[in-house]
Amino acid sequence: MRENAKDPERHARRMAKKQAVMQQRIKSADQDQGVLLVLTGPGKGKSSSGFGMVARSLGHGCKVGVVQFIKGKFSTGEDRFFRNLPDVDYHVMGEGYTWDTQDRERDVSAAEAAWAQARRMLQDDSYHLVLLDELNIALKYEYLDLDRVLDDLAARPAMQHAVVTGRNAPKELIELADTVTEMQVVKHAFKAGIRAQKGVEL
Amino acid sequence: MRENAKDPERHARRMAKKQAVMQQRIKSADQDQGVLLVLTGPGKGKSSSGFGMVARSLGHGCKVGVVQFIKGKFSTGEDRFFRNLPDVDYHVMGEGYTWDTQDRERDVSAAEAAWAQARRMLQDDSYHLVLLDELNIALKYEYLDLDRVLDDLAARPAMQHAVVTGRNAPKELIELADTVTEMQVVKHAFKAGIRAQKGVEL
Repeated sequence: MRENAKDPERHARRMAKKQAVMQQRIKSADQDQGVLLVLTGPGKGKSSSGFGMVARSLGHGCKVGVVQFIKGKFSTGEDRFFRNLPDVDYHVMGEGYTWDTQDRERDVSAAEAAWAQARRMLQDDSYHLVLLDELNIALKYEYLDLDRVLDDLAARPAMQHAVVTGRNAPKELIELADTVTEMQVVKHAFKAGIRAQKGVEL
Repeated sequence: MRENAKDPERHARRMAKKQAVMQQRIKSADQDQGVLLVLTGPGKGKSSSGFGMVARSLGHGCKVGVVQFIKGKFSTGEDRFFRNLPDVDYHVMGEGYTWDTQDRERDVSAAEAAWAQARRMLQDDSYHLVLLDELNIALKYEYLDLDRVLDDLAARPAMQHAVVTGRNAPKELIELADTVTEMQVVKHAFKAGIRAQKGVEL
């Protein structure tokens, strides 16, 4: 298409065709429903995308819940920004990365307590969206029982959105989800010796 | 690893090893630098991830710039949430999707005006992060000259982060970038008849 991209008539014809396709697509997707989103894969952007949806929900005047699993030793930008907003219910698991604690029992207790918060939100339809950040890490290490997590997600209010982030999403969660994105690394600054930057990763 | 995930001693040993690897990695990535991020591919999460980084930057007390290309006919959650915050300089190209205008000249003018805003931000080191949302769409349709865009991105202040979103990122932009994520669709609610939801896509 590059060759003729600048021909105005061809452009108008092509766009009219595209408009018809888009209108048909939009017409056939006419249901409103709470969606379960899973953002997984090794690429950068999973948690930040979850927090973008938190911001969008707040923009529509809705209440949101956030539970951060695993992360929590340091104060991040998202934590500072969202934690004290009136429509945000924000919980951090608070034991840091699992390779830093090196204590399985402590990690399991912390994950259980975090899930109790998540479960409370998933049973309350006043939450428009619930972000379960890095939940996949807690599932991978089996800090939480997968079946219980899936049951609680499936039983949430019909109009509530839930967003689960983290690498290595279990296949049963992917099956349950409505929208799943796998984030692939094309390149990453970290490998070129650039550490995590405030506002980008932190 | 699932089999022995629950053995506490094995867990402690594995995590100690992982901690050493992570510490070494963190040690060898010791540079601070403004990074150019590109979020591309067909999967859900590109713009929302960009807005998550906007929130993170604001959490650190930094000033951010946002220019939205292509989108702009309707008021989105991110628009309502971020537009009026004191540390956010927010511009929307304002002509809607290109298949709705069907007028190439109008699209080009709108893109040029939007790029003038972007360029101003990219020349001003008081902006910690500049989000160029859906810029890749404007580049794909050649509303903007790619070389000029690349030159302006490359010439930005050394500590400034820039985030470019949208499908079909041109390969020259990927070459210039520090971090690139390709978002793949595993599944999408839209295909199951669920329309775009407030707080998720809007």
